[in-house]
Amino acid sequence: MISINDIDKPFIDKLFEKTDDIIKRGGSKGKCRLNIHSDKILVNAFFEPSTRTQLSFESAMKSLGGSVINFNAYTSSLKKGESFKDTIKTLSIYGDIIVLRHPQTGSAKEANEYSDVPVINGGDGSNEHPTQALLDLYTIYKSFDNNLNTVNTILFVGDCNNSRTIRSLIKLLHLYPHISIYFLPYSGCNPSEDMLHSISHKQNIQTNILDKNQPIPYHLFDVIYCTRLQKERIYTMKQQDRSRTDIVITKEILNKCKNNVIIMHPLPRIDEISTEIDNEPNSVYFKQMEYGVKIRMALLDLLLSR
Amino acid sequence: MISINDIDKPFIDKLFEKTDDIIKRGGSKGKCRLNIHSDKILVNAFFEPSTRTQLSFESAMKSLGGSVINFNAYTSSLKKGESFKDTIKTLSIYGDIIVLRHPQTGSAKEANEYSDVPVINGGDGSNEHPTQALLDLYTIYKSFDNNLNTVNTILFVGDCNNSRTIRSLIKLLHLYPHISIYFLPYSGCNPSEDMLHSISHKQNIQTNILDKNQPIPYHLFDVIYCTRLQKERIYTMKQQDRSRTDIVITKEILNKCKNNVIIMHPLPRIDEISTEIDNEPNSVYFKQMEYGVKIRMALLDLLLSR
Amino acid sequence: MISINDIDKPFIDKLFEKTDDIIKRGGSKGKCRLNIHSDKILVNAFFEPSTRTQLSFESAMKSLGGSVINFNAYTSSLKKGESFKDTIKTLSIYGDIIVLRHPQTGSAKEANEYSDVPVINGGDGSNEHPTQALLDLYTIYKSFDNNLNTVNTILFVGDCNNSRTIRSLIKLLHLYPHISIYFLPYSGCNPSEDMLHSISHKQNIQTNILDKNQPIPYHLFDVIYCTRLQKERIYTMKQQDRSRTDIVITKEILNKCKNNVIIMHPLPRIDEISTEIDNEPNSVYFKQMEYGVKIRMALLDLLLSR
Repeated sequence: MISINDIDKPFIDKLFEKTDDIIKRGGSKGKCRLNIHSDKILVNAFFEPSTRTQLSFESAMKSLGGSVINFNAYTSSLKKGESFKDTIKTLSIYGDIIVLRHPQTGSAKEANEYSDVPVINGGDGSNEHPTQALLDLYTIYKSFDNNLNTVNTILFVGDCNNSRTIRSLIKLLHLYPHISIYFLPYSGCNPSEDMLHSISHKQNIQTNILDKNQPIPYHLFDVIYCTRLQKERIYTMKQQDRSRTDIVITKEILNKCKNNVIIMHPLPRIDEISTEIDNEPNSVYFKQMEYGVKIRMALLDLLLSR
Repeated sequence: MISINDIDKPFIDKLFEKTDDIIKRGGSKGKCRLNIHSDKILVNAFFEPSTRTQLSFESAMKSLGGSVINFNAYTSSLKKGESFKDTIKTLSIYGDIIVLRHPQTGSAKEANEYSDVPVINGGDGSNEHPTQALLDLYTIYKSFDNNLNTVNTILFVGDCNNSRTIRSLIKLLHLYPHISIYFLPYSGCNPSEDMLHSISHKQNIQTNILDKNQPIPYHLFDVIYCTRLQKERIYTMKQQDRSRTDIVITKEILNKCKNNVIIMHPLPRIDEISTEIDNEPNSVYFKQMEYGVKIRMALLDLLLSR
Repeated sequence: MISINDIDKPFIDKLFEKTDDIIKRGGSKGKCRLNIHSDKILVNAFFEPSTRTQLSFESAMKSLGGSVINFNAYTSSLKKGESFKDTIKTLSIYGDIIVLRHPQTGSAKEANEYSDVPVINGGDGSNEHPTQALLDLYTIYKSFDNNLNTVNTILFVGDCNNSRTIRSLIKLLHLYPHISIYFLPYSGCNPSEDMLHSISHKQNIQTNILDKNQPIPYHLFDVIYCTRLQKERIYTMKQQDRSRTDIVITKEILNKCKNNVIIMHPLPRIDEISTEIDNEPNSVYFKQMEYGVKIRMALLDLLLSR
């Protein structure tokens, strides 16, 4: 589980089926606890902080009955100068599976070579975040009656340049070429070359980048996916562009959308979506977070059961 | 479990009965481990550091067979600007119950509105700390043969102005109006208006604030409850009052007390109680800490079993 | 489990036998999980950072089915001024066994007096690290067909002055006087007086300190034990000696050694051993780390089963 390139449709079908089953077993309260991996230890190896990903995996593993060891490398004795290889070899001794979050592109792939146990990429720099892409896709799938064939358009709003989340989901959507991809970027946040290239094989790029100063055809989209400005990555932007969120999904905008549109967000949200629509059935961002735990349970189960 | 105002006598009776049972099951070693909530996850949500409360709940939950996820918000990516509401909604997805420690008054009540799972107030600013009050009351109850009717007087020594601990216990003692409350404050630490008001309906305030420069009638008290100077909250005190502990419970003082007096302290202790009396049967502060784990086990069990 | 002085051969035999059994049960994957202490809580009490020791004990305890509470005193409310005694008494309430890491010599012994539960010394200052010595000895034992009688010589390379690891293993080797001890120190890192004294009863000290500027008789040694320069403890060294690692075990050196020599290292490694020999059967440093978890499992089991 290193790169989205390794994921194919049969794997997704299997993973989604297992996730459906986990949700079914959870019942009405939404808490599914299975005591099936009580003899397993997950090592959360975080070389940069990411509370949400870390807690989500921790909750998933504990919901399977397993144990979790948190290794926060950014506060640890790594300062002593140990190599990445030695650290990973050591961590693979402590547990049965590793979730790796690291600021450098390719670090998950590298770790997988060193580790004696499976490695899950929990985000490697600005590169990929495969489990986020999977939970996003699963959220779309569940919201449209377990049928991705009925979804035709997705609009990415916000920081289309720097978002690892957007990049990862677009990569995964390669498997579903019938879904058209649109961008509505903040000022100074146009999609990067690699993202445009990533969709160029199937779509007319020009018409797919919307201008926030023109009327937006909100009624066209099945999915609206918002992202926050990646403040930690904007140092290369021009001063005047280092602005605030300049597109906010409000009740007024929601009223212009399809009836069954879904509004997504990887969270944390700052002000990209008005809280006034939090209780609308279209707002699925908290559901999305919940599915995150469930899809990670399913993924851990698949990898630990090998 | 948000405010002491919500606690009534039937609840206390039920909680104490369950705690008695847990202690009985623990046997002579004092360690009771029940494997009754192995399918449950507690989220320790700490927005300010409080090692003792956090570890006590962690020990309690693990003693019930359950899992714990520690979320230390003061070190986390909360900095990204997420709202309190979104954070609480997220945490309620990760677990089955939340313990909240937060520097702001009213935060626990607010969290309870947002959360899909029960919230326990683990201290909200200078306001309340209900589980501390419960463990304190339980310590008195156990020390007097499971009978609060035989307890008539309690003396609070120390920082009577700022102590959340004192405020919380006094609130809980409203349910036991036969217990008279006395204060023996450090210099500059007289009881605050709200605390005096809190006991004014039943007692003569004037006579109940003792002057440390006068002889103290130590023989009057069934319970002596010491607190340390809240260093983190003394910035508003006059310079000359920002002093040291100026009343220390020594062997000499203990000799002036009732035979069966109990000496309590919420810990950590700095120098409010001389270590020379640590082994006296009257010194129950470590017992008190032990009861803290047990009462939290009982409380968690009640809330998780609903 | 406070001092190596308390360890005798019958205890070692029992511990190694149990560890052998744990490894056997682990099977080919090397992960042994026993669900035998699910009702027990280990408290990792770390008064200075030591990621490796902490994680190793955490992995060991969780592999026995138990729970772990991590108490990192260097970040906690200890700052409030609580005494060491009060802290230890409190921690002994939260769990069934304590692992203590502390910067001061003698702290483990002191803690053991205060605690109501067993204390394991996880390193007290520059003094001792008994479980490290045990895992080191076990690594030698396993590498020589479970027979320490066939081991005659050990060479310590590196920081022979400050290394708690070396000091501890030498102490433990008192029980095996047939093993000769040699030093090959970095510049400015000659063995300290106490270490020399420690071996003086049986060996000719003069001939046992090798000079790195002379030819080294690598072919003599059964075990080569490398250590890194203790950067955190070199402030008393002369400026010109605060150098880098100046002896590196390379493929070239390995070729001069006995066929069945083993190369050990407590890790983390900086550059004391060239990575080019990582895959040689002689390089047992990662194995050594793995044995660390196993020996700690065995030790915890012995102490918790009393």
